[in-house]
Amino acid sequence: MNFCCDCGGPLSLRIPERDDRHRHVCDTCGMVHYQNPRVVVCAIPIWNDKILLCRRAIEPRHGFWTLPGGFMENDESTLDTARRETFEEAGAHIEVGELFALFNLVQINQVQLFFRATLPEPVFAPGIESLEVALFAPGEIPWDELAFTSVSCTLREYFKDRAQGHYRLRVADILHPPGQERRIHPHNFAHD
Amino acid sequence: MNFCCDCGGPLSLRIPERDDRHRHVCDTCGMVHYQNPRVVVCAIPIWNDKILLCRRAIEPRHGFWTLPGGFMENDESTLDTARRETFEEAGAHIEVGELFALFNLVQINQVQLFFRATLPEPVFAPGIESLEVALFAPGEIPWDELAFTSVSCTLREYFKDRAQGHYRLRVADILHPPGQERRIHPHNFAHD
Repeated sequence: MNFCCDCGGPLSLRIPERDDRHRHVCDTCGMVHYQNPRVVVCAIPIWNDKILLCRRAIEPRHGFWTLPGGFMENDESTLDTARRETFEEAGAHIEVGELFALFNLVQINQVQLFFRATLPEPVFAPGIESLEVALFAPGEIPWDELAFTSVSCTLREYFKDRAQGHYRLRVADILHPPGQERRIHPHNFAHD
Repeated sequence: MNFCCDCGGPLSLRIPERDDRHRHVCDTCGMVHYQNPRVVVCAIPIWNDKILLCRRAIEPRHGFWTLPGGFMENDESTLDTARRETFEEAGAHIEVGELFALFNLVQINQVQLFFRATLPEPVFAPGIESLEVALFAPGEIPWDELAFTSVSCTLREYFKDRAQGHYRLRVADILHPPGQERRIHPHNFAHD
């Protein structure tokens, strides 16, 4: 960030009055340019006992499998995002159910939400961001080819709950210290 | 948005390649300036059977009571935000518990999260954004002087669950069509 998006003036990094942290502040018009985490919303789309996964046609993690999801846009709700992204990536209409997982990814300034969802009918097709889309029974999940830590954690915890017939929201941090492996720090569940 | 924060060039509102909606795009360097919803995180801080509320010293809703909370910052988790905001606004340290409510406020591009929390000790004091801070028993809540629809909905649903000894995540939209009253559209609970 170098220039004010409002007036084009130069920005300095300083602590505004009545604030306690450095912000990009315009030297000309005084506008403070806040930067905040973004929300990613994913669906766990179910048809009978199978889960819909997409194989990614884009980076990062090209060729790996993921649950459909993406960045929340302005003018939509978290449920809208889950529906829109599932249609864009998997060509499938879903009915969104309960929130199942919330992950904090502090190092990349993201909050990821995973909603349970059902497919009213087994109709789907890859969108431009997917190489293929398919339904997987629990024993068929490609565990070694999943794209993201949050996706594998969500699926693992989802199957635990489904076996017990009772679902409970999971909250966890996904830590990614520089030069180290990603690590799950759960807040309200035992993770093995 | 008029200027590119990266190179200072002029922005046009147009649909970038492989996108499906209008964005502010730099005519000079091609940078796409995405705008996304922001996350607000609040706490429901409990000491014995009482709830900690803050009376706002700032607009909007100066003089009205609210649960402590505010915008999530970069480099923190949702739980960090709940802790930081409760300390800033109410001078209180909390232990953050389960997520209790998620509200979509589409008209103002916000997602609001409310976490249950406990005060290890009844120590609190107004921060610069609060006129006063106090503990309220259920019968003492100033229902007509609450600042926000999401706060009154959260407290009402919280007391229902506490009476039953079992807590369940609430998900709702708070709609604010132009010229109309705010309206709660619950996704997973009966709202009266």
